[in-house]
Amino acid sequence: MGTRKRILILGGGFSGVYTARNLERLLRPDEATISLINQENYWVYQPLLPEVISGLVGLTDVVCPIRQLCRRTGLVMREIQKIDLANKVVTVSPGFRPRLLDLSFDYLVIALGSISNFWGTPGGVEHLKPFRTLADALSLRNHLIQTLEEAEIETDAGLRRKLLTFVVAGGGFSGVEVVAELRDFVDNMRRHFPRLRSEWARCVLVHAGDRILPEMSESLALFAHKLLAKRGIEIRLNERLVGATSEKALLGSGLEIPAKTIVSSVPSSNPRVLQDLECEKEGWRLKVNGNLELVGHEGCVWALGDCASIKTVSGNRTPPTAQHATREAKTVAMNIVAAIRGGPTCRFAFEGLGKLGSLGEYSAVAEVLGVRISGFPAWLLWRAVYLAKLPSLRQKVRIALSWFFVLLFPPDFVQMRLTRQPAIARQHFETGEVVFRQGDLGDNVYLIQSGECDVFRETNGRQSPVATLGPGDCFGEMALLNDVTRNATVRVRTSMDVLLLSKDDFDALKTSIPVFGDVFRRLATHRSTGNLEPPSKGFSEE
Amino acid sequence: MGTRKRILILGGGFSGVYTARNLERLLRPDEATISLINQENYWVYQPLLPEVISGLVGLTDVVCPIRQLCRRTGLVMREIQKIDLANKVVTVSPGFRPRLLDLSFDYLVIALGSISNFWGTPGGVEHLKPFRTLADALSLRNHLIQTLEEAEIETDAGLRRKLLTFVVAGGGFSGVEVVAELRDFVDNMRRHFPRLRSEWARCVLVHAGDRILPEMSESLALFAHKLLAKRGIEIRLNERLVGATSEKALLGSGLEIPAKTIVSSVPSSNPRVLQDLECEKEGWRLKVNGNLELVGHEGCVWALGDCASIKTVSGNRTPPTAQHATREAKTVAMNIVAAIRGGPTCRFAFEGLGKLGSLGEYSAVAEVLGVRISGFPAWLLWRAVYLAKLPSLRQKVRIALSWFFVLLFPPDFVQMRLTRQPAIARQHFETGEVVFRQGDLGDNVYLIQSGECDVFRETNGRQSPVATLGPGDCFGEMALLNDVTRNATVRVRTSMDVLLLSKDDFDALKTSIPVFGDVFRRLATHRSTGNLEPPSKGFSEE
Repeated sequence: MGTRKRILILGGGFSGVYTARNLERLLRPDEATISLINQENYWVYQPLLPEVISGLVGLTDVVCPIRQLCRRTGLVMREIQKIDLANKVVTVSPGFRPRLLDLSFDYLVIALGSISNFWGTPGGVEHLKPFRTLADALSLRNHLIQTLEEAEIETDAGLRRKLLTFVVAGGGFSGVEVVAELRDFVDNMRRHFPRLRSEWARCVLVHAGDRILPEMSESLALFAHKLLAKRGIEIRLNERLVGATSEKALLGSGLEIPAKTIVSSVPSSNPRVLQDLECEKEGWRLKVNGNLELVGHEGCVWALGDCASIKTVSGNRTPPTAQHATREAKTVAMNIVAAIRGGPTCRFAFEGLGKLGSLGEYSAVAEVLGVRISGFPAWLLWRAVYLAKLPSLRQKVRIALSWFFVLLFPPDFVQMRLTRQPAIARQHFETGEVVFRQGDLGDNVYLIQSGECDVFRETNGRQSPVATLGPGDCFGEMALLNDVTRNATVRVRTSMDVLLLSKDDFDALKTSIPVFGDVFRRLATHRSTGNLEPPSKGFSEE
Repeated sequence: MGTRKRILILGGGFSGVYTARNLERLLRPDEATISLINQENYWVYQPLLPEVISGLVGLTDVVCPIRQLCRRTGLVMREIQKIDLANKVVTVSPGFRPRLLDLSFDYLVIALGSISNFWGTPGGVEHLKPFRTLADALSLRNHLIQTLEEAEIETDAGLRRKLLTFVVAGGGFSGVEVVAELRDFVDNMRRHFPRLRSEWARCVLVHAGDRILPEMSESLALFAHKLLAKRGIEIRLNERLVGATSEKALLGSGLEIPAKTIVSSVPSSNPRVLQDLECEKEGWRLKVNGNLELVGHEGCVWALGDCASIKTVSGNRTPPTAQHATREAKTVAMNIVAAIRGGPTCRFAFEGLGKLGSLGEYSAVAEVLGVRISGFPAWLLWRAVYLAKLPSLRQKVRIALSWFFVLLFPPDFVQMRLTRQPAIARQHFETGEVVFRQGDLGDNVYLIQSGECDVFRETNGRQSPVATLGPGDCFGEMALLNDVTRNATVRVRTSMDVLLLSKDDFDALKTSIPVFGDVFRRLATHRSTGNLEPPSKGFSEE
């Protein structure tokens, strides 16, 4: 058993999950253990995600638990903090206890996809809505419903206009599908929102190129353009989104579109953990060879999917589609098997079978093996292909049921909001409980509202009491200020209520309110000199 | 048209929605306008809510958009801030713009239900999970999945035990249904989580009385008790939950149950807006007469459902069930019609047809018209009754499909998490935009990260500039400190990025970190003397 190789897969999208599935098929259980790290416990069937907006398919229909798809793969549902290629260790975020977890590997597969990057656009991070994950789709749907509900009762005509204007930036496949579903959804809602009968909602598609769908041939793009325009979607070509506020979209030409909803499908970037990864890159993508091995780490690390720069034999970069990801996954799995068993490796050689894009309302465009199809036949093909490609029978049946169901009953518009959590969390401790231990990861500052706690320092197994803290005192800030682990253990003396300020919030406040940071910095300096009593009855006065 | 009466319904549960439906049926459109205020845009079919835990029915299957159920009723999707009975005005929270909205009424229906009240239990607010709303059910389900995923990879046996222990407090209908669904869910998951095959999860039901299901006859309660015990649920009678921390449940006998999941179905209390309402009450419930009129406001205000203290003819208080709520709604609607048209009023007289409780796994207990049924027949009856009672055909079909579907495919365990929002929000403004206007409601403090803005005061229509603020400055705190509306208008001078601290977070920080509050208070005093420049280059230094 000691010779079982450890294979670690990072990412649970098409590329990660299909690599695991191929490995399960190719390898015997005694040859290797397979683990997969993903923040969510489910895999998303990306091609159907836009349909979540209009409610054509249910939220849970487009996802499938990863454990169900890869039964022999161990799922680690955590965030990846660090990839150490030299020591062959991946570090993941803490779970219920504040300790990092290290996972060693013999073979590593990087399939982390890409993220939305709005930092280049002023106001982008704050006001652009991404459309990439299931959470994005859910939150966009909820936001749309909110705008309709508010527009219905709003008396100010200007604000109502903004509420009923929806801007989508990026006229590629993703942007076109989103704007089409958005139009369908709003049109379906006319029955329920009397205001929509008298005030036509405005949907705008902004695209930087001189025609939409650059992935498709010109004639199909033109077909799509006409169809969308006929359905009342305003298409602005050669125009770029350059800024956003909570009130409007700013375009490159100087035009402003007053709107409360701005969706952007571009641009993409590296997940943060890959930005820090030291290896060869092409642009922000990882550089791989024809066997999909990470350059400089051949035979040990593979990268695939949208995070890798992969060329087809014809020299084009592979598009971020499911058909490519699944073929790449097969290549990677076969090469890992070759690495374990010995034997020849194989090169990635797949040119793509075709391109499919839904336009909503029983229409689509398709190019399959050189043949161009549009309209209803393309739409039927689109549905058939995607239904056939679903990996589990369960999902096939569910989605088919969903599609059948909306023929009988139009989609609904329930807003699935979770109650808004207060930003600042609270925690209650009983006497004797330990708040954190020396050596734990520092991820929160604690502010005592009531009760008391003791601070101990442990040296060579000996505990020495350092201080007792009470209401108005705070603790835990040192680890945050210096970005290290806890340097003391805190145990509750009398049952205690605390406020928790997360590391991110603490950092934001510290930088924006200098005096706030100063107080904590002074306290930390004071304490690091060995004195853990608050300076002069604590910073609760000053 | 001037004579159309304005009917305002508060709350979108069974009682509120059925009052609206009855009114739509009884009144002509020219007789009255009907409005309903509810924070969510959907109505929840409460009896099926526990099934969401185990995934027997989908999340969106148990809900229905209110606009779809009451087509002639105007929905206001806002939070109720204040009910002014003397002036016949209800004030609701702001939408996209920070202004309160006043809604006048001729007739008012209060159907706000009850809320979970954990303040009496130390650690309750922080660590007990309620089970009352759809958001509660969703968040409990997500939490359960998280504990299973974490237990699967946890190496510490003690923590694993805590992760696999589930405590439910309260052995009434609601608690019993929750613990039964919870057991079913965990058992269904055994296939996917190898750990669950070797380590049996522990489910504990804690009940203060000497038998569970006090609503039922003793023999049925005993039947239920035996069945739950046989399925491995640990039932602790005559035992009360007295405290909770993130690590354990504390019981009255001194017993501690280490657990990461503690659900509580008790106790209930008034929604906050009713706590402030000045009228006669019985306990925390509103006092109504036999016509369900609010005592002291007869002929104008009605109250029903769980927020009202309603006696049946036999003198018992009506239980908070759907069958009672729908009958109360009918009585209220008829009495409102009587008030508008004149004519005799009617008294509420309904004793209940029966009681039904699901025990999960094809079993239930029922008492219908004096007949006691248990086991599979009761379960069939339970399903049939609830399916029949669903108001829309759409929902009937969906839920029937769901039930049919899980016969073929066992329920899944997708964790529908939204990305965690950072606690401290950010906003971007472009030159010329207005951050807030004099007279707006103060709901945020703004901390400038970059850019500048001008502060104006408006008197008799004249704008006089007061100050220019820049990076490191803050504004908007005065309205929060004094709990009034904004006393100035802020307009952006050069494109500006700000951090937003909500009123609740600001208050929490202010009370817990006295120095934090002091800084803002000093600033406010300084400014209220007419000087809006920050004191001595602002509180950014000090």
